[in-house]
Amino acid sequence: MNIGVLGTGMVGRVISSKLIQLGHSVKMGSRTADNASAAEWVKANGAGATQGTFEDAAKFGEIVFNCTLGMASLEALKAAGEQNLGGKILVDLSNPLDFSHGMPPSFSVCNTDSLGEQIQRAFPAAKVVKTLNTMNALIMVNPSIVPGEHDIFVCGDDSAAKAKVSEILKAFGWSSILDMGDIKSARGTEMLVMMWALLYGKFGSPNFNFRIVK
Amino acid sequence: MNIGVLGTGMVGRVISSKLIQLGHSVKMGSRTADNASAAEWVKANGAGATQGTFEDAAKFGEIVFNCTLGMASLEALKAAGEQNLGGKILVDLSNPLDFSHGMPPSFSVCNTDSLGEQIQRAFPAAKVVKTLNTMNALIMVNPSIVPGEHDIFVCGDDSAAKAKVSEILKAFGWSSILDMGDIKSARGTEMLVMMWALLYGKFGSPNFNFRIVK
Repeated sequence: MNIGVLGTGMVGRVISSKLIQLGHSVKMGSRTADNASAAEWVKANGAGATQGTFEDAAKFGEIVFNCTLGMASLEALKAAGEQNLGGKILVDLSNPLDFSHGMPPSFSVCNTDSLGEQIQRAFPAAKVVKTLNTMNALIMVNPSIVPGEHDIFVCGDDSAAKAKVSEILKAFGWSSILDMGDIKSARGTEMLVMMWALLYGKFGSPNFNFRIVK
Repeated sequence: MNIGVLGTGMVGRVISSKLIQLGHSVKMGSRTADNASAAEWVKANGAGATQGTFEDAAKFGEIVFNCTLGMASLEALKAAGEQNLGGKILVDLSNPLDFSHGMPPSFSVCNTDSLGEQIQRAFPAAKVVKTLNTMNALIMVNPSIVPGEHDIFVCGDDSAAKAKVSEILKAFGWSSILDMGDIKSARGTEMLVMMWALLYGKFGSPNFNFRIVK
């Protein structure tokens, strides 16, 4: 499948590389078509790996992954273009976190709204699925870094889109995928990241994940 | 030990009964000295169980448990009296949740502050330990309702107070007690309750808990 990945940071590169490994073609999008981080990634990943602007990547993808920083996501998606996202699954990995005031971080949106909902409202024709935002990037594509059973969450209004994204998550190695409900439930999975940030500080390592035991 | 429990709802009654079972004397406090729910609890729990006002309960307790609803906690603690809380461990179980607009609930405070911090600021001479707020009341005092390993969190500025509260949690049956750090970390454990509320809605049962896997 052709997949567009927005964002050239750690998360964007890790997700893109895994998608390439799984046999997909990936165009990594950035503000500029010649982003150095994306160029390095293209070089390292060979055939099937290309780069371009946010717009190029969104046009290219049958599915689009938003791996931009939460504070910049709405702007990046606007640059990607509503017409290039409409009807497509938009996998949203972003967290609306502001680290500029130190630890713990603060959220630019939470409680009665979420970034997932803001993105769905701004791009009503896209099928937003919030997922992968509750763990370290390396664990996203290699859950076995954390031993035993642990969970990943999907939130979104479109059941078929969540099912399709769950297939991709299974290909990433996930076995316990919890459907949290509609995109409003992104409030829960985004706010969970405050706990994640505190646990990361406590453990001094990002190699952990959440498990719901029942 | 003499323990004061503020609040006569489900959480207050369950905690109070467990403390009585463990051999403590408990005075359950309410806005009025003759609260009907507290009277019923006193009748059912015999020797060692008494009731009174918030002030009576706080005066009585060497340790005080805040089991009032989060939206009313600061007012209840004010009625309990700063002079009756000073120097004492104040175990805070409350969540600042507003269910008046339906599900999911909203927080009256979160993100850059927490109810735990508000209480610590309002009662600087008390040793506030935030804990027990991330699971159903029955699980609080009987963790084995949920099979296998799962976690409880403690947050607070006073290490000795956290150690003392951890002893009580062990007596409740908890084996995995995670010290999250100072009272600021209550932001994480309170915000976690959004996820709890969504999972409760999803499962249709409160018989689950969080486990940090690493």
